[in-house]
Amino acid sequence: MTRTQVAIVGAGPAGLTLAHLLRRQGVEAVVLERRTRAHVESRLRAGVLEQPTVDLLRELGLAARLDAEAMTHRGVRLRFAGATHRLDLSGLTGGRAITIYGQHELVKDLIAARLADGDPILFEVDEVELSGLDADPVVRYLRHGRRRELRCSIVAGADGFRGVTRGYLPGTVFEQLQPFAWLGILARTAPSSDELVYAAHEDGFALHSMRGPALTRQYVQVPPDVDVAAWPAERIWQTLRRRLGHGDGLDLPVGPILDVTVAAMRAVVTEPMRHGRLFLLGDAAHIVPATGAKGLNLAVADAAALSYAIGAWAGGAPAELDRYSSRCLDRVWRTQRFSVWLSQLTHRLPGEDAVDRRLRETALSELVSCPHTGAAFAERYVGQPLPTPWWWNG
Amino acid sequence: MTRTQVAIVGAGPAGLTLAHLLRRQGVEAVVLERRTRAHVESRLRAGVLEQPTVDLLRELGLAARLDAEAMTHRGVRLRFAGATHRLDLSGLTGGRAITIYGQHELVKDLIAARLADGDPILFEVDEVELSGLDADPVVRYLRHGRRRELRCSIVAGADGFRGVTRGYLPGTVFEQLQPFAWLGILARTAPSSDELVYAAHEDGFALHSMRGPALTRQYVQVPPDVDVAAWPAERIWQTLRRRLGHGDGLDLPVGPILDVTVAAMRAVVTEPMRHGRLFLLGDAAHIVPATGAKGLNLAVADAAALSYAIGAWAGGAPAELDRYSSRCLDRVWRTQRFSVWLSQLTHRLPGEDAVDRRLRETALSELVSCPHTGAAFAERYVGQPLPTPWWWNG
Repeated sequence: MTRTQVAIVGAGPAGLTLAHLLRRQGVEAVVLERRTRAHVESRLRAGVLEQPTVDLLRELGLAARLDAEAMTHRGVRLRFAGATHRLDLSGLTGGRAITIYGQHELVKDLIAARLADGDPILFEVDEVELSGLDADPVVRYLRHGRRRELRCSIVAGADGFRGVTRGYLPGTVFEQLQPFAWLGILARTAPSSDELVYAAHEDGFALHSMRGPALTRQYVQVPPDVDVAAWPAERIWQTLRRRLGHGDGLDLPVGPILDVTVAAMRAVVTEPMRHGRLFLLGDAAHIVPATGAKGLNLAVADAAALSYAIGAWAGGAPAELDRYSSRCLDRVWRTQRFSVWLSQLTHRLPGEDAVDRRLRETALSELVSCPHTGAAFAERYVGQPLPTPWWWNG
Repeated sequence: MTRTQVAIVGAGPAGLTLAHLLRRQGVEAVVLERRTRAHVESRLRAGVLEQPTVDLLRELGLAARLDAEAMTHRGVRLRFAGATHRLDLSGLTGGRAITIYGQHELVKDLIAARLADGDPILFEVDEVELSGLDADPVVRYLRHGRRRELRCSIVAGADGFRGVTRGYLPGTVFEQLQPFAWLGILARTAPSSDELVYAAHEDGFALHSMRGPALTRQYVQVPPDVDVAAWPAERIWQTLRRRLGHGDGLDLPVGPILDVTVAAMRAVVTEPMRHGRLFLLGDAAHIVPATGAKGLNLAVADAAALSYAIGAWAGGAPAELDRYSSRCLDRVWRTQRFSVWLSQLTHRLPGEDAVDRRLRETALSELVSCPHTGAAFAERYVGQPLPTPWWWNG
């Protein structure tokens, strides 16, 4: 039997960012992760960091490799009705930008820094069970064949949508499956654009994105019940070229495909995000459709809010914990709205008619031509300010 | 057999505004109207004029009664999630506003001014038939029991969605019926608010609007197949009070109901808006869902564009006529998008789930709190600039 202040279940961006933020506030935590270190360091996930996420990582001294290797994008391309338009993100937001950096690279940095600090991350922790959530939480788990117990004052559930901690919340789960999915294609090809290209083609959505100078991560809209076997390389390249406008300012080289995955698109929100001494953050609490790449950034925002609430509690101001859920949910629903809106604006929807298509093209056209509409989009796309510490009045 | 330069079919706001604008450019026109003068002067329609519409009427010297009697609204109220919020239209648009003035009042003014100018409006014109649209149009019609012919160079089809002129266009008709309708209630009660109140209630939409100091024009969302008999006065008042938030800053007096109507909600666009020498304008060319009250204003914009194109043609520059349709359609689709968007943002939709409802509340909340989103809305709501004459470079 061991004891800590905060047990963090899950070593993804949510749990690891929380652990680092708690350390800065003198709060002790143990991170428990079901998978191996190698596994979590190689899981392919999102790759777009908002400006406030990058700012926080820099403030925490965790951005050295990111600053050396990541790509900064000051704009984004939208392709529709046979033409490609650029939205000047920096111009519309007073200089802010997005940063292209794979989530697993960030996870590597966060793990390395925590272990270098001498703080514990327990990998290969299975069969997690929670009890005593009303007052004195106990986390029971199996590791390397032995049953163990961790006593703590607070449990942070950061183990994702398929994790166990969300099962302990008695609240309401809002869930909506979107009527489309993404085929994700990792290929050893040079990026064809220096910025992301979102294409709203009449056949469906496509996204050209990249992970490095010789690595692309692209997506095409497919039906939720897609059979990956029906998508051989030739069909993938033809579809990408057609939807992204190959030959019209974009030349998409064909190259070896390293990985093909299918991702469902759902909107999920758990309300409240807290039950007794258990607090959910990141994908354990909510899932946003992938369009706009908000998931990781929302997890970091939760981690910031929770860390400040726990810091306040540790300093004798426990009421901050009571405000955690409502503070987060406001941002969660705004992000959910943005992600669902951007998805519906760029995807072909089942049952849509000719009027829907023209209205969508008109909305896209206003997005790239109306300064107010562009600014509202850009502010949300580069990311709105993170929660600030309760003691911060600056 | 008589002859004129332009035969205008329909004496609604579109046709009458066109006639006045043509007169200013020295172009002769005859207006033909199926109904009696008394009928068109008492037809209850929309009542919100955009700033550019009012500016144009003033410029034409047609706003004397409007300026004396109409109400200027510098803001609008949005009610959702149990609270009422104000959008400062003037603050968000550099001083612009909307003007509350019944469409039939405007029609009275336009008819009186035209007749005072000594220009013809033929009422009770029936069985209109068009021919020779390629080069030498002829309008045949029945009036007071006699068949007549009007030869002209241009036919302007301004006879509305149920009129005959749109039947002569061989183009594409985009049409989408919205899954809701409006019950319109004219009542002899004092307005309860000095500005319009749009309510997005969980039961459905409601709108509090007014026609004068003792006359209200209110609407409630009903199913498209509504049976008016199922809406006795008591149910109407209960529904309005519940949806608009009676008692929470709004006190809705009950009073005699003078008129109850049902209006379907459709989005219709005819492309192109021209066939040979026939040019459509207003509801003959397009219908927008009523939310946001754009129909009349869009008709005035068409009339402005067509009048300048005809003026150019009369002055020896016929190519302007070729640009009429595409110039109008850009605004038509933008207005259509706005009207459908505002409808879907404020109405209860069949098949919606709890996530849809929360996303809608979030979008409404951002509309009243995000300055960019508010400005984009306000600019469209008070009205974007009208088409300018082809010779105008100011």
